[in-house]
Amino acid sequence: MLIVMRTAATEADTARVVDYIKTLNLTPNPIPGAQRTAIGITGNTGALDPALFARFSDVCEAIPISRPWKLVSREVKPDDTVVSLPGPDNQPAQIGGGNFGVIAGPCAVESPEQLMTAAREVRKAGARFFRGGAYKPRTSPYSFQGMKDEGLELLAKARAETGMPVVTEIIDTRDVDLFAQHVDVVQVGARNMQNFALLEAVGSIKRPVLLKRGMAATLQEFLMAAEYICKNGNYQVILCERGIRTFETMTRNTLDLGSLPLLRRLTHLPIIVDPSHGTGDWRSVPALARAAVAMGADGLMIEVHPNPAQALSDGPQSLTPANFAKLMTSVKAIADVVGAKL
Amino acid sequence: MLIVMRTAATEADTARVVDYIKTLNLTPNPIPGAQRTAIGITGNTGALDPALFARFSDVCEAIPISRPWKLVSREVKPDDTVVSLPGPDNQPAQIGGGNFGVIAGPCAVESPEQLMTAAREVRKAGARFFRGGAYKPRTSPYSFQGMKDEGLELLAKARAETGMPVVTEIIDTRDVDLFAQHVDVVQVGARNMQNFALLEAVGSIKRPVLLKRGMAATLQEFLMAAEYICKNGNYQVILCERGIRTFETMTRNTLDLGSLPLLRRLTHLPIIVDPSHGTGDWRSVPALARAAVAMGADGLMIEVHPNPAQALSDGPQSLTPANFAKLMTSVKAIADVVGAKL
Amino acid sequence: MLIVMRTAATEADTARVVDYIKTLNLTPNPIPGAQRTAIGITGNTGALDPALFARFSDVCEAIPISRPWKLVSREVKPDDTVVSLPGPDNQPAQIGGGNFGVIAGPCAVESPEQLMTAAREVRKAGARFFRGGAYKPRTSPYSFQGMKDEGLELLAKARAETGMPVVTEIIDTRDVDLFAQHVDVVQVGARNMQNFALLEAVGSIKRPVLLKRGMAATLQEFLMAAEYICKNGNYQVILCERGIRTFETMTRNTLDLGSLPLLRRLTHLPIIVDPSHGTGDWRSVPALARAAVAMGADGLMIEVHPNPAQALSDGPQSLTPANFAKLMTSVKAIADVVGAKL
Amino acid sequence: MLIVMRTAATEADTARVVDYIKTLNLTPNPIPGAQRTAIGITGNTGALDPALFARFSDVCEAIPISRPWKLVSREVKPDDTVVSLPGPDNQPAQIGGGNFGVIAGPCAVESPEQLMTAAREVRKAGARFFRGGAYKPRTSPYSFQGMKDEGLELLAKARAETGMPVVTEIIDTRDVDLFAQHVDVVQVGARNMQNFALLEAVGSIKRPVLLKRGMAATLQEFLMAAEYICKNGNYQVILCERGIRTFETMTRNTLDLGSLPLLRRLTHLPIIVDPSHGTGDWRSVPALARAAVAMGADGLMIEVHPNPAQALSDGPQSLTPANFAKLMTSVKAIADVVGAKL
Repeated sequence: MLIVMRTAATEADTARVVDYIKTLNLTPNPIPGAQRTAIGITGNTGALDPALFARFSDVCEAIPISRPWKLVSREVKPDDTVVSLPGPDNQPAQIGGGNFGVIAGPCAVESPEQLMTAAREVRKAGARFFRGGAYKPRTSPYSFQGMKDEGLELLAKARAETGMPVVTEIIDTRDVDLFAQHVDVVQVGARNMQNFALLEAVGSIKRPVLLKRGMAATLQEFLMAAEYICKNGNYQVILCERGIRTFETMTRNTLDLGSLPLLRRLTHLPIIVDPSHGTGDWRSVPALARAAVAMGADGLMIEVHPNPAQALSDGPQSLTPANFAKLMTSVKAIADVVGAKL
Repeated sequence: MLIVMRTAATEADTARVVDYIKTLNLTPNPIPGAQRTAIGITGNTGALDPALFARFSDVCEAIPISRPWKLVSREVKPDDTVVSLPGPDNQPAQIGGGNFGVIAGPCAVESPEQLMTAAREVRKAGARFFRGGAYKPRTSPYSFQGMKDEGLELLAKARAETGMPVVTEIIDTRDVDLFAQHVDVVQVGARNMQNFALLEAVGSIKRPVLLKRGMAATLQEFLMAAEYICKNGNYQVILCERGIRTFETMTRNTLDLGSLPLLRRLTHLPIIVDPSHGTGDWRSVPALARAAVAMGADGLMIEVHPNPAQALSDGPQSLTPANFAKLMTSVKAIADVVGAKL
Repeated sequence: MLIVMRTAATEADTARVVDYIKTLNLTPNPIPGAQRTAIGITGNTGALDPALFARFSDVCEAIPISRPWKLVSREVKPDDTVVSLPGPDNQPAQIGGGNFGVIAGPCAVESPEQLMTAAREVRKAGARFFRGGAYKPRTSPYSFQGMKDEGLELLAKARAETGMPVVTEIIDTRDVDLFAQHVDVVQVGARNMQNFALLEAVGSIKRPVLLKRGMAATLQEFLMAAEYICKNGNYQVILCERGIRTFETMTRNTLDLGSLPLLRRLTHLPIIVDPSHGTGDWRSVPALARAAVAMGADGLMIEVHPNPAQALSDGPQSLTPANFAKLMTSVKAIADVVGAKL
Repeated sequence: MLIVMRTAATEADTARVVDYIKTLNLTPNPIPGAQRTAIGITGNTGALDPALFARFSDVCEAIPISRPWKLVSREVKPDDTVVSLPGPDNQPAQIGGGNFGVIAGPCAVESPEQLMTAAREVRKAGARFFRGGAYKPRTSPYSFQGMKDEGLELLAKARAETGMPVVTEIIDTRDVDLFAQHVDVVQVGARNMQNFALLEAVGSIKRPVLLKRGMAATLQEFLMAAEYICKNGNYQVILCERGIRTFETMTRNTLDLGSLPLLRRLTHLPIIVDPSHGTGDWRSVPALARAAVAMGADGLMIEVHPNPAQALSDGPQSLTPANFAKLMTSVKAIADVVGAKL
């Protein structure tokens, strides 16, 4: 923490702040400057709250200098975290540490036929993880809310046939045990990124968690949400950039690809990209997917539906199996250029 | 829904879309124009998904023209909803319909002394509702997380002594019965505004719900979140504008006061303002509180702490009891000018 | 400037940065901490560029601690700046220092009749400044672009008859002499807030400048734009909050009223509010205007048109003369409560 | 334009709107629906202003359905626009239509040595256009403002030696003739994207214009700014995505790569990407540059400085010549995969 005094502050004003810092059992380090005095604070083990100094009318600003995250930081753990699960063809399905994992499937589980067709098609094209929503968080209470536990059973069948681990979203703390039992990767959606009760709940189970960035979450908040999960004992967290909300409305979201190289420097957790939600238009999905692999992401999450025009949810952003297969060809070619293992 | 065809679309292209609309059991109304053809769709009872038309390459745009909310709409219920609870001095505590309700108290319940002092002071200054957080949603897992059920008990004591109904935040669906039993107004916080499981849960109890606007929630999403609660049978919903996230960082949030007159036209639900979170700095709270009453808001939610410098949460945005009392004087004077009952 | 080293930085790494600071003729003040070392820099007369330290891979962050503005700062000039011009009834028209000035008139000068009617009506209702656009910056090249120099002449006639000083927007550096000659208050619009050539040009004339906040301008950039004008010798600058661009689209802009108390603390310049652009809907203008006066703004800028339905520009946000007169009544009542001179 | 009536509107209310539309010499097409009536308007040649209908209290919404841009639209001109100039080695330097053009050079022209070194190095690595700012728009009036006309002369020398056409920014309408004479591609910067006087001025000269997207400009506004230039007779416009302003502050801007495939569908103009401003950190530039080429952009604009640590402007986002050369290798490899001519 750095305390910046007002230019008009006297030595006595500064002394008052210095004394207050000592009452917190911390060490004040005054730095007199040409225009104003600053006071560096040392001795704290965690982040201090700038709020503590807001009451001193002679304090101009209190600037935090430690970063509040710990367990997710690359400064704490320099090597990449790899999430590895039993996968198809008796080979592991992996994300992170140079392994590029593709998660594909429909937005929502709609029927046995729809789900099994999707699973077979994405597997054939090269996906190694399967996605499908059983519990759907929808903006409108009048929209399709998912097949719920029946959906989980269908996902289990898809895994049994194709060998792909399944990724599906949890939306209620009361479902944690159910998910721990039936699901391979538990997804926390963008709208629940700061549902701290849910973060703590999934932090206490032994399943990898795919954490989507909230629509208006800063990267710092994103990392702090991951920190909640790790703090409860679960270090298998995959970060997923899926677009943020900005003033632009011609795209569904603004995919913040620029966050990738920065997150890579800050954290050891794997980082994947969801271009389907990131743009909201299937015609833009392939270009953004190519971008993600060219940048060095650890994977992709892509919505594929056997018949997007009839999809009960997110049809316009879903690829057909044929377009997904075509996309996988260029994804592989770019992965070769950047040295990613697919 | 209005379908706008591309300028290059032929009559056959348009016919294909017209036919598709018929398969949905809806009525297509083609409107040939100078530059392009549009097709109005009628016969739908709810909102249609624009996504349905994204597959037609000759469709330029699909524009929804119905509004997706119903139960919260002023078109459905023209008169104001009033939330009324037993209040201090054997008079009701009311929000809405010309009644201006002030909710005040500390961000978090910290101790019996802190809470009772706060309750007495805000009551003395004219507040008729008491707030205090027992379960705290915090960005960092290392911050104070609240006194939890012990906090609920202390709030009950404050109500017993002062007569003020208590408002406190719920953060987990598993706590709904507990809150239904002990709390007068159940608050759903900004971070949980789209926690649909929680919205459904509080929609099924018989307690007024104070719903805070999410940090990046559009007004449409805000109203749809209220719709979730009403749809489950609970029509006692108070909307609370508390600031949105924008590019500006010198204030904690950007208080969207311009939303008030618009929401007033769109919905019958009462609308209050939280200037404490809206700005994040106690020095700016009084000006924004005066603005809210001058605009015709139905109430205020203000953080007051007996000793803000020692607050465990949100100290910098909390007023002292003396500053709160001073603010109430000017709030009353402006309420007189605009004809609000305080 | 405070330099924060990485946790892994060695003493030698820190020494390299210390040496570099010395080459800039500045004084490094190392502060060793529990987790990492920070280096306070003193001896600089202006703001340093954090960029200078981005090359050191052991530097975690470089945090500016001086504020970059000077001439506009309340730390430099504690008393309020007042803009005062000859006004109607041989009384000055004033903005700032407790004087609440109302600027009203149509968005665009359209015809002699329209302009003179508007001028008489707003004067009658109590406005002391008159606005009207002669050169219009329009998003579309196909929209009405203003009456240009003919418009300036009509504005001069309105001033001659009513005594109100006129406020109108400049959009081209080539027009500066023309404006200096004919206009009382030169407006720099939101889209030109960082047109630095224009800021320098209006800084060199002897006319008050009304500077509108850019749609995506931070408060720091807003103050720096004012600094450009002052630096060129013109200290008569009025800041105008007129709404910022956010994700919300149901209002034209998001009026950032929360910036007012903060700007008041940071600068001595007067601050007014434009609720017409701030919301884009005449039905919301009165509520926001009342809010501004209740908060302690130094004035209002309001669009009034004799016949909004026929307006060539911004009709939907313009008040009729009757609605403007009604608004002025409540503005005066609230001004009395907060002690502003109208 | 589609007019949506309120649910409570009577037939007489609708008739009033229908009559008004006829007074505008347009054709009303009423579409009675289950919940409300809508009125499609046809017969207009340009975009109508929704504002026209804001006065009718029974009108719920007025929705524009024509797009306001024309000359820049792919609907008007389906084939790609190619900007072609005499380039190095007696080969044209081209952007658009499958030609991938790389523009590189320092942020600012600082000295003959700095500029010539930069020019030689970027040419050697494969750039075919050279950039360098002579007139610098800076947030602070106390920052380096550029070498101005002396800078233009140095750029001409760089062109003479290397054969690369030069790209440099104009910031004042008074300089248009000077630029038309000395500069190959005239850049309009982000802060001037809606400086309409400047857009008209560069629209009237015979030089390609590189138009940067404004920090808070919607894609629609971006296209309309290009429309201003084309309307004045200059169709050689290159669009440049350079990052938008969002709530995220850990990156300098948020590079909106998702806009690329959408712009590609909407306009025939070439679209390039500036990853240097897009992220603000040289360490993130290569990943974003690779993303742009993988997506199918028409080119890149990259800041390269012989000695970034000593740069007078934007040092932290500038690549060294060595890093730029390394980047060009992977850009070429990815260009091969996606079929772009480099």
